[in-house]
Amino acid sequence: MSDTIETKDITRPPKELVKRLEGIGSATAAGELKRLGIQNAYVQGPVPYSPGKSIVGPALTLQFMPQREDVYKADEYADPEKQLHRHVLYHTQPGDIVVVDARGDMTSGCFGNMMLTFFQGRGGQGVVINGCIRDYPIVMQDLDLGLWLRGVTPNFHTQTNIYPYAVNVPISCNETLVLPGDIIIADDDGVVAVPATLAGELADAASTHAEWEEFSRDKLLAGGHLRKYYPLSEEGRAEYEEWKKQQG
Amino acid sequence: MSDTIETKDITRPPKELVKRLEGIGSATAAGELKRLGIQNAYVQGPVPYSPGKSIVGPALTLQFMPQREDVYKADEYADPEKQLHRHVLYHTQPGDIVVVDARGDMTSGCFGNMMLTFFQGRGGQGVVINGCIRDYPIVMQDLDLGLWLRGVTPNFHTQTNIYPYAVNVPISCNETLVLPGDIIIADDDGVVAVPATLAGELADAASTHAEWEEFSRDKLLAGGHLRKYYPLSEEGRAEYEEWKKQQG
Amino acid sequence: MSDTIETKDITRPPKELVKRLEGIGSATAAGELKRLGIQNAYVQGPVPYSPGKSIVGPALTLQFMPQREDVYKADEYADPEKQLHRHVLYHTQPGDIVVVDARGDMTSGCFGNMMLTFFQGRGGQGVVINGCIRDYPIVMQDLDLGLWLRGVTPNFHTQTNIYPYAVNVPISCNETLVLPGDIIIADDDGVVAVPATLAGELADAASTHAEWEEFSRDKLLAGGHLRKYYPLSEEGRAEYEEWKKQQG
Amino acid sequence: MSDTIETKDITRPPKELVKRLEGIGSATAAGELKRLGIQNAYVQGPVPYSPGKSIVGPALTLQFMPQREDVYKADEYADPEKQLHRHVLYHTQPGDIVVVDARGDMTSGCFGNMMLTFFQGRGGQGVVINGCIRDYPIVMQDLDLGLWLRGVTPNFHTQTNIYPYAVNVPISCNETLVLPGDIIIADDDGVVAVPATLAGELADAASTHAEWEEFSRDKLLAGGHLRKYYPLSEEGRAEYEEWKKQQG
Amino acid sequence: MSDTIETKDITRPPKELVKRLEGIGSATAAGELKRLGIQNAYVQGPVPYSPGKSIVGPALTLQFMPQREDVYKADEYADPEKQLHRHVLYHTQPGDIVVVDARGDMTSGCFGNMMLTFFQGRGGQGVVINGCIRDYPIVMQDLDLGLWLRGVTPNFHTQTNIYPYAVNVPISCNETLVLPGDIIIADDDGVVAVPATLAGELADAASTHAEWEEFSRDKLLAGGHLRKYYPLSEEGRAEYEEWKKQQG
Amino acid sequence: MSDTIETKDITRPPKELVKRLEGIGSATAAGELKRLGIQNAYVQGPVPYSPGKSIVGPALTLQFMPQREDVYKADEYADPEKQLHRHVLYHTQPGDIVVVDARGDMTSGCFGNMMLTFFQGRGGQGVVINGCIRDYPIVMQDLDLGLWLRGVTPNFHTQTNIYPYAVNVPISCNETLVLPGDIIIADDDGVVAVPATLAGELADAASTHAEWEEFSRDKLLAGGHLRKYYPLSEEGRAEYEEWKKQQG
Repeated sequence: MSDTIETKDITRPPKELVKRLEGIGSATAAGELKRLGIQNAYVQGPVPYSPGKSIVGPALTLQFMPQREDVYKADEYADPEKQLHRHVLYHTQPGDIVVVDARGDMTSGCFGNMMLTFFQGRGGQGVVINGCIRDYPIVMQDLDLGLWLRGVTPNFHTQTNIYPYAVNVPISCNETLVLPGDIIIADDDGVVAVPATLAGELADAASTHAEWEEFSRDKLLAGGHLRKYYPLSEEGRAEYEEWKKQQG
Repeated sequence: MSDTIETKDITRPPKELVKRLEGIGSATAAGELKRLGIQNAYVQGPVPYSPGKSIVGPALTLQFMPQREDVYKADEYADPEKQLHRHVLYHTQPGDIVVVDARGDMTSGCFGNMMLTFFQGRGGQGVVINGCIRDYPIVMQDLDLGLWLRGVTPNFHTQTNIYPYAVNVPISCNETLVLPGDIIIADDDGVVAVPATLAGELADAASTHAEWEEFSRDKLLAGGHLRKYYPLSEEGRAEYEEWKKQQG
Repeated sequence: MSDTIETKDITRPPKELVKRLEGIGSATAAGELKRLGIQNAYVQGPVPYSPGKSIVGPALTLQFMPQREDVYKADEYADPEKQLHRHVLYHTQPGDIVVVDARGDMTSGCFGNMMLTFFQGRGGQGVVINGCIRDYPIVMQDLDLGLWLRGVTPNFHTQTNIYPYAVNVPISCNETLVLPGDIIIADDDGVVAVPATLAGELADAASTHAEWEEFSRDKLLAGGHLRKYYPLSEEGRAEYEEWKKQQG
Repeated sequence: MSDTIETKDITRPPKELVKRLEGIGSATAAGELKRLGIQNAYVQGPVPYSPGKSIVGPALTLQFMPQREDVYKADEYADPEKQLHRHVLYHTQPGDIVVVDARGDMTSGCFGNMMLTFFQGRGGQGVVINGCIRDYPIVMQDLDLGLWLRGVTPNFHTQTNIYPYAVNVPISCNETLVLPGDIIIADDDGVVAVPATLAGELADAASTHAEWEEFSRDKLLAGGHLRKYYPLSEEGRAEYEEWKKQQG
Repeated sequence: MSDTIETKDITRPPKELVKRLEGIGSATAAGELKRLGIQNAYVQGPVPYSPGKSIVGPALTLQFMPQREDVYKADEYADPEKQLHRHVLYHTQPGDIVVVDARGDMTSGCFGNMMLTFFQGRGGQGVVINGCIRDYPIVMQDLDLGLWLRGVTPNFHTQTNIYPYAVNVPISCNETLVLPGDIIIADDDGVVAVPATLAGELADAASTHAEWEEFSRDKLLAGGHLRKYYPLSEEGRAEYEEWKKQQG
Repeated sequence: MSDTIETKDITRPPKELVKRLEGIGSATAAGELKRLGIQNAYVQGPVPYSPGKSIVGPALTLQFMPQREDVYKADEYADPEKQLHRHVLYHTQPGDIVVVDARGDMTSGCFGNMMLTFFQGRGGQGVVINGCIRDYPIVMQDLDLGLWLRGVTPNFHTQTNIYPYAVNVPISCNETLVLPGDIIIADDDGVVAVPATLAGELADAASTHAEWEEFSRDKLLAGGHLRKYYPLSEEGRAEYEEWKKQQG
């Protein structure tokens, strides 16, 4: 019986830890993670389809595999409970982000309007897909999700080459490893997967980030020289101290 | 003499048939066509360059071929009447859509501002090109066409590799077959080519589409469960019947 | 000592010459350059990340090369004065445009917010990169630069594969040759590199561009025929002369 | 302790069944499997690096995943027992074929000379890799294995991007699904994965293959017409019956 | 009725003209055609699968198109007379070469053993395919054809994406235009398509090719300097004249 | 005057140092260089076109750039002394290897028969090209050079897109940095560029390579277990010591 399918949930990082990563931005995260030993935490491939969105949250994962007719017969509506792309959404808790290995496929819409409506109803924040969604015109009009995708398509999720195969397992999202429970930071620069074990250190490193950057930015915009203001030279630092005093 | 070039027109599907496909959307069309035996009606490759546009209409087709100097000498203005990309536009009737096999070329602008202005003047709705147009800044400002393209370029249509070769013949648009007279459905999900012979069945299938979807969407957005509302479970259906009564 | 690094400046074309190319647009430039013997002046690859921007100015150039650990050890902040991507910006004069051969790399952000702020502070107009920038959300919000890029990334400029290698040398930007001192014309159609020696002829050719185009465009938009109005037929020209008289 | 790693073995198809598929060739297999409902059983990507070899046997599978420094630290010789690419070889029985999802990586040599020597010593027949091996000069000189690869490289298996992640699980070999226990048929036409459940039917279909093909081939080679000899026309069949009699 | 399908033959260039091009080689042909105004006569993509073969002959052409289920239902053996890949072979005359636009497809074997056997039986010299053949092991063992291919595959010609659509029409073979009746020159450097109208001039140019090259080659191999022997300097020419006298 | 072109020579590593690297093979070199801090010394892209060849020697380098008509007018024979691909060969000393950044171009034959004949006459060992040569049939028949190429073509070196731009400068060969004077190790596994400063350490590391590998290989081929023989377990080592004694 189909309703016996059980997929495992993820171990979510503490909410406070996730919260500490909000506002950092993917660029700071990528740079600091490099210093913490992760050469390239950037999930290259999916690009913003919801410009301006910036989200942070734990990763639920979904893995697609190539179809083969003896293993999977494409049929969108036959026994929906067997379709694993539904099951990953069943695990949704507020703030979750679904990351999908859709194998780069440009002719399969991993989720459509109804799935994403449910996901948003459950508090999901956004999806990161090495592939496509479907119903993009409706999704953009009716929903308020963060979307990082390779593209969109009118096709449904099993119309052509792939089918949903596993839930909450380690996946490759465009040749970057993403583990279930990683903390995803996604904005208009792109998507970064933060290992939960490094999230604390990352938050620490980012918080010590130079408060003088605002000062420097103003100076640079007014024509000040990089050599003086970025990084701060001794001369620039003196000016900065003065400026800080004046800011009160 | 150049004005003796004659290219054939297309057989247009009945206007009522085209009308019945309006409002369906490319996603519904792709899904239903799969059920009608067309595995993948999606013309992958061209993406929306006129966001928000949604059009339906018969396909005029234009095929480019690679240049070879003994067959075609690139010269934009020499004897314009010999340029076949003009001839496909001569056939324009209100509602028509031009689909072009531009061979994926990213350095040839198949149409520029003047061509597209004429096309719009004749009632053309939009273009689908496995390649580029030119004069995009002016086109976006002055015209109101639907555009599905691989990109844009400053180059003119025969500046580099290709030249217009045939009008209103079957073409491959990024490895999807498109016949002259197919009905094109294009929106922000992408482009679908509907064989005219299947258009009636598609319209029927789409019209029987579940009226309960609106109900389900509301429930899902409010946190209702997929298992109950999509597809409708028995329990969900009872709620829906109640809701329908209340809607009056 | 690091501050002994000296990179050479470019020879800038006369300001009046640059000025004459303003308003021409990349499409006219590409077409006319073809007639002047440059088959394909279009720098294919970088696309507009600042829609609506249209700029003209001389090219400063920056070349990246692949990293090798015995030659370059990735370290963003060690001795910034040795980082050549800073040096190209040191040469910025009002109106300059920086063109970068970033080797097509999608995981290196050649410039970030602070660099680009300095660049704008010095009067820089925009950047053309066969690769990415970083801090795109901030750059779009705080700055007013023209951006033609292959993409954006959270990674910094030497986080993965490449490092800045040479300043103001001839570069290949996505297999188009760009010389330091070329005049760049960039808009929503794309980027064209104009050899300084051809800029005068180009300006001449573009200024003789047909004043009847405005007339023709109106006629075409109203349903007039291409054969009559583009190019102007004898009959069309008579109408045009009449129209011109009436315009006074 | 590392030696506690246990990976599961495969369920091997009956030896007689495998034997029945010998001599069929990948082309006949691919064509007949299409008729049995498998649209495309061909594992496109790996090409013959041992020309002339033709092998049939059950698939052991190995899956690589992208490296991430918190999960895998590249070190070829540290605790070899933890390296899963060794474990898939531990399961080798005479006639086995190892199929690897190496993610298409061209800079990782999944197996080198010593691993492949052990594999041959255990009776392994060959490897199919969506990627590379290493030590190809020695392997070609000293061993007698069938090799279907995307290429070769001097790099070792974890030198760059990937690491061995799972053994004897379903894998995607260049976007074709391969299950552990599938029967692989590989020759100079390429690689076909036969689902064990279809192997019997495939063997039956292939054995009924037309005995007249030899006759037809001779006729065609001598200038006979396709219409008469392939497929056999009535006239051709009469000739054939005569010929068969004469062959005695 | 299927046998009413009629495809047109090509206009073959005079046999003497073809003969004059034998022995020239594709490299000389490509270089001289550039001088005759054909920038790039090289059909890049297909590579030698019959090393050492060198052939010259007129082109029969075959064009594949993408499958669509309402237009083509894949079925290898249903009514073979409707399969156009057979018809191009029906036109074979001794010395002919078949050039195929297989759309770059790597999972369709355009011709198999029986088709190619017939082709050889009729005097065909070789095939050039922007795609694959099937039955390569048998073809290499039993036949003696020149083969320039992108690859080989076990799949039959309509097993996946494409079907044969037109015979003896202009085709694009990997974005090089090839006309029916072009003279193909193919060897281990690759494939060149010679427009029949330029064949005479090409033969003339090639025959005037420097007889001193043999002399120069010997000198260079013995350590002589390029500056002296290639092209021949005055000093080198004097030596050459002397050498020629001695050769008698 | 053209003969005033002077290109600089390279600093060659000591001949003894080069000699010490002979026989190591590219696989050992790549593995040991990783341990010495060079993550990926493998020049991926060029593949063996002279199977069986194995060479070691210092790198002369040649860089191509994209053609632009105002900078380079394609003309194979006009003033040969200006063609820089000749100049890199002028520097040839016995044992040298020429490494070329041909920008991955598949339609330009960087060197032809005469150039390579001169190169061999001067003692050159081989070429590594991220692109093609021309005259491959003659080169394979008449010369005895090592060739690592992306392909071959009938076209000459400036027939299409690129032209020779610089000699003996740092180049990117398919996104691997190669410096003039690096020591190239090339065989059927591929090409490795060894920084001259690391060559000594590499030679040391390779010479300490385990002498027990021969013993282990025999054992493995005879069915011995990896766990015992690779790497040598204590038990295996005891056997090995015994074996060594018996070998005398």
